[in-house]
Amino acid sequence: MYEIGVVYRNLPRAEAAVADQLGAFGCATVHEAMGRTGLLAPYMRPVFPGARAWGTAVTVLLQPGDNWMLHVAAEQIRPGDVVVAAVTAPCTDGFFGELLATSFKARGARALVIDGGCRDVTALGALPFPVWSRAISARGTVKATLGSVNVPVVCAGALVHPGDVIVADADGVVCVPRLAAGRTLEAAARREANEADKRAQLAAGVLGLDMYKMREPLAAAGLRYIDG
Amino acid sequence: MYEIGVVYRNLPRAEAAVADQLGAFGCATVHEAMGRTGLLAPYMRPVFPGARAWGTAVTVLLQPGDNWMLHVAAEQIRPGDVVVAAVTAPCTDGFFGELLATSFKARGARALVIDGGCRDVTALGALPFPVWSRAISARGTVKATLGSVNVPVVCAGALVHPGDVIVADADGVVCVPRLAAGRTLEAAARREANEADKRAQLAAGVLGLDMYKMREPLAAAGLRYIDG
Amino acid sequence: MYEIGVVYRNLPRAEAAVADQLGAFGCATVHEAMGRTGLLAPYMRPVFPGARAWGTAVTVLLQPGDNWMLHVAAEQIRPGDVVVAAVTAPCTDGFFGELLATSFKARGARALVIDGGCRDVTALGALPFPVWSRAISARGTVKATLGSVNVPVVCAGALVHPGDVIVADADGVVCVPRLAAGRTLEAAARREANEADKRAQLAAGVLGLDMYKMREPLAAAGLRYIDG
Amino acid sequence: MYEIGVVYRNLPRAEAAVADQLGAFGCATVHEAMGRTGLLAPYMRPVFPGARAWGTAVTVLLQPGDNWMLHVAAEQIRPGDVVVAAVTAPCTDGFFGELLATSFKARGARALVIDGGCRDVTALGALPFPVWSRAISARGTVKATLGSVNVPVVCAGALVHPGDVIVADADGVVCVPRLAAGRTLEAAARREANEADKRAQLAAGVLGLDMYKMREPLAAAGLRYIDG
Amino acid sequence: MYEIGVVYRNLPRAEAAVADQLGAFGCATVHEAMGRTGLLAPYMRPVFPGARAWGTAVTVLLQPGDNWMLHVAAEQIRPGDVVVAAVTAPCTDGFFGELLATSFKARGARALVIDGGCRDVTALGALPFPVWSRAISARGTVKATLGSVNVPVVCAGALVHPGDVIVADADGVVCVPRLAAGRTLEAAARREANEADKRAQLAAGVLGLDMYKMREPLAAAGLRYIDG
Amino acid sequence: MYEIGVVYRNLPRAEAAVADQLGAFGCATVHEAMGRTGLLAPYMRPVFPGARAWGTAVTVLLQPGDNWMLHVAAEQIRPGDVVVAAVTAPCTDGFFGELLATSFKARGARALVIDGGCRDVTALGALPFPVWSRAISARGTVKATLGSVNVPVVCAGALVHPGDVIVADADGVVCVPRLAAGRTLEAAARREANEADKRAQLAAGVLGLDMYKMREPLAAAGLRYIDG
Repeated sequence: MYEIGVVYRNLPRAEAAVADQLGAFGCATVHEAMGRTGLLAPYMRPVFPGARAWGTAVTVLLQPGDNWMLHVAAEQIRPGDVVVAAVTAPCTDGFFGELLATSFKARGARALVIDGGCRDVTALGALPFPVWSRAISARGTVKATLGSVNVPVVCAGALVHPGDVIVADADGVVCVPRLAAGRTLEAAARREANEADKRAQLAAGVLGLDMYKMREPLAAAGLRYIDG
Repeated sequence: MYEIGVVYRNLPRAEAAVADQLGAFGCATVHEAMGRTGLLAPYMRPVFPGARAWGTAVTVLLQPGDNWMLHVAAEQIRPGDVVVAAVTAPCTDGFFGELLATSFKARGARALVIDGGCRDVTALGALPFPVWSRAISARGTVKATLGSVNVPVVCAGALVHPGDVIVADADGVVCVPRLAAGRTLEAAARREANEADKRAQLAAGVLGLDMYKMREPLAAAGLRYIDG
Repeated sequence: MYEIGVVYRNLPRAEAAVADQLGAFGCATVHEAMGRTGLLAPYMRPVFPGARAWGTAVTVLLQPGDNWMLHVAAEQIRPGDVVVAAVTAPCTDGFFGELLATSFKARGARALVIDGGCRDVTALGALPFPVWSRAISARGTVKATLGSVNVPVVCAGALVHPGDVIVADADGVVCVPRLAAGRTLEAAARREANEADKRAQLAAGVLGLDMYKMREPLAAAGLRYIDG
Repeated sequence: MYEIGVVYRNLPRAEAAVADQLGAFGCATVHEAMGRTGLLAPYMRPVFPGARAWGTAVTVLLQPGDNWMLHVAAEQIRPGDVVVAAVTAPCTDGFFGELLATSFKARGARALVIDGGCRDVTALGALPFPVWSRAISARGTVKATLGSVNVPVVCAGALVHPGDVIVADADGVVCVPRLAAGRTLEAAARREANEADKRAQLAAGVLGLDMYKMREPLAAAGLRYIDG
Repeated sequence: MYEIGVVYRNLPRAEAAVADQLGAFGCATVHEAMGRTGLLAPYMRPVFPGARAWGTAVTVLLQPGDNWMLHVAAEQIRPGDVVVAAVTAPCTDGFFGELLATSFKARGARALVIDGGCRDVTALGALPFPVWSRAISARGTVKATLGSVNVPVVCAGALVHPGDVIVADADGVVCVPRLAAGRTLEAAARREANEADKRAQLAAGVLGLDMYKMREPLAAAGLRYIDG
Repeated sequence: MYEIGVVYRNLPRAEAAVADQLGAFGCATVHEAMGRTGLLAPYMRPVFPGARAWGTAVTVLLQPGDNWMLHVAAEQIRPGDVVVAAVTAPCTDGFFGELLATSFKARGARALVIDGGCRDVTALGALPFPVWSRAISARGTVKATLGSVNVPVVCAGALVHPGDVIVADADGVVCVPRLAAGRTLEAAARREANEADKRAQLAAGVLGLDMYKMREPLAAAGLRYIDG
């Protein structure tokens, strides 16, 4: 049950340095480092190519067809934040466009992740202000009904708390809980440590079958080879 | 009930100058100027990046898997037209490709909006001939069953009459009824008049909360602030 | 009923020269040359713009959320192959990313066609290693359950046998059965032979109505013209 | 472009006797009699089994998440009407439930066709008051924004004018324009006239191939028989 | 980020009496009483007609294609519980069938709500054991990967904590947080108190326009009446 | 690549006795007995409640919006057959209704499985003639373009050969290859042999955790219990 009509202020954020290091790893690596959890649904796509962003979450709960709370959220943005907007029912309307992007950017926001629609996408690419959304739609919204800011929200199937770390790129959007950011960073670093070596071996033609020593478990599982 | 097997010729079009001015405003502004009506469903997407077009509608009613009437429509195109094609049942087949685009372009068409599929999209980008469609599909079509040209059609959920103004860009496609084009243009112009000023204020860090004087109505609606 | 836990080796492939000539025609022309069959569902999209590839199929049957068999398939790749991966139930997980692409490319694969998800799409574009997939998702997979390699698979609604020719571009993906490759090539060549002439006529403003002699059959079908 | 904020009163309806006779034929036959046009999208389903209704349309244009205009429409209902509600953007909210059904029924309405959601479906079945909707959802709506009553609407992809005949059953919903109702009735009657004879022949084992004399056209089209 | 591999035991539940009283109001009324929040997505449907259930939530987090944790959850069921199962990625497999239903029922569970598939639906109707699911599918699952029991889960877009009250019927499924159950019950009771009177008025032909005193606000909003 | 314009006659069928015994086990059990393969996509649903059927497949390949080949297929039906119809592109049109059902039933067909739409569903329930389809739609079809009968088809994602065994019920539709029917029957029988005992234990309150000896592997996988 969402709390409606409330704005939480001055909530703690994950450490900026940790958020930045997680961002450098990218969405896929961070998602793996979290034990394959925290990913938003893959229908969330960047609205222009090359978009990549990370930061700490300011959450917004919107009503369908109503973007009033995005204006309320703007005041709560601090440099380094990523705004994460959920909607109380599925809606593809264009809640966000060039003017709000100009405002959000001026307040220090790095990106918007919205489980709804977005418009003015050409202008967003020119600013640039990266957005991940479920739809692109010119359909406008009203400013009539309260939602909330900085309550926990379910965005594209994932639970996001204010202050969590958001990492978004061409592969999708992942949310790292604030209190798990440090250990996720360590896990991501461990994961990447030997990637370069693996990549070199594979590029040289070594098979994953051998590099990962899969032949024995495959045989144990019953894999049979038949010559055609 | 669609009228099948009919081609209306020499129907009146919205004024070319009005269509061009509406086009310059773009889909989102025009849609707002119409009181947030007239928008085609957001599944209609440009088949190559950067596509932007506007003009007066030549409408086509197609049967699923059959592009015969697009050839019939070609003859009715006048310079400045945008062809708007509906299908009598949902179908993602590739009704339109490079050859038809070459023909449409030679007749003066500026774009195609089709509630079906499209193919040869690389060639369309090279011509260029912009297309907004619900799908990209190589699946070809036959030429066997009659539809109609220049009857009113429901395209992607919107009613389009021949001669209406179509404005299409990265945000979507909007249809302005011919007789409403003039007053929609005025409304769009009014809307844009003070956008530059608003953008400058927001870029300077002024909040929409203050610029739009939202604090009072938000409080009246019951919004509460809680420090975290 | 799929055969599970089997790898067929050294199966015959369509002739490389025939595959290459088919590839040059592109997906739409080849699909037409096959009598409008063989096309994969249009939800299969390239993960980066400009992707185009063709070759002979190595097929893989995956279990949902499990990419083990892609490693097994790597060993069966020969230069000029395109890997075609089906999944036993719909799944958008990111089965394939940069490391596997490095390995596949080193083995001579030209592309992957996967009825599932794909990740590291920025890196795939940089390699480049073209992929057609039903989704982009950072969500990772495990290596726990057997599937098969080089069994016939249903991929995005189309039946693909190992050794068939795959042609993929911006319009989609088509599969040409190995034994039909030769006659499909002839049909494609015949189809393209007079395209240049047609294109020139249409560019000069000649109507398809006249070029294709459609006026008589349209009248016979009952088409009526009414002046508006 | 929808006209917003308007209620048309006392519009002409199709003749009640014609509507009732069309209703007796059922949705599939009427749709055929109209040359296979006029059908609403097949996602429109009855909310309880056995629902069947027909009558003259009172149209309603709703805003997403807002059922205010259904109350306005209630006053315009006359005995024998079917209310047809469109929404300006896709929305599955439960716009309609037991109380409105009680009111509509008391005013003489026979059914609701709504391109949105519906709730209290158990109570609707008990009244009974038949509803065809795109969704069932408990999610409630507000009464805040104007739409219109008795303007032409696009409902589930079909254009419906006030006064048109609506026929709905387990196969779907079809709309017959008021002025076409008479000739559609004749066509439906002709179509049904020899159905009983055909049914008897087929039940006796006569093949459609012979009854419809299809063997020659099939052979002409090139059909070949091969013994397995 | 979900906690994986954990089973919480002996968590507090909402009061049984409160849950039962909420259940008697039904999903739509409870959802309204919560300020229109807490509803699961409308794709969650009962697998047999007439299903209706309520109780306190035991939550389960499943991996796609794996029902191991449903067996783990069975031990945590107490009489009066409703099991609520989320999956870490969308999956329509048949996680649950007759045998598990027999076990759940024997342990005192009243229903299952699962954001995945279900099978043996004829047998479930015969037991009866009500299930709300996103799909019906015969496709079976394995028992190989850990999830969790009694962690907070996102099920069909709604956040569910163990011990919350679940109310499910033909209109959908709603979740009432444990600590909000009491005040939600009061709100639901207030809401229903004057329903009977309203129903009687509407049945007598009184218009909602008058009963709810809507004529003035409608006029204030600009509604115009035009005689046709 | 489908073979178009061909009818194979007198193909071998799976043994009738084996098909009947498989049918008695039902879709879920047979699917398990096949190693969890052979299932059609879960969007295939019975058009009336209680439908259950099995038999040997006569396959039909249809063109979208065209049911000509269903008439051709009728002649190839033998008592005990189930007609399985695929379409060369997604289409929800109503290919099949009461007249064809009367004909199919007279020829001895037991059911239709169609990856398209169906109509006259009330009449189908009255005959009864069970149908599993992807949609219900009144939209009619033409008889204009050749497909094939008794070629291998991909229906709802599954490969079906003529003569295979089809088992369909409320849980879905499964296809057993003709040559695998015998060993699938044995596997199904083994699977069911101890179901009664398991059901009795679970009904008595024994946990699956104990009955299936899962506690040890769960602990080995790392499952932890925490008291709340």
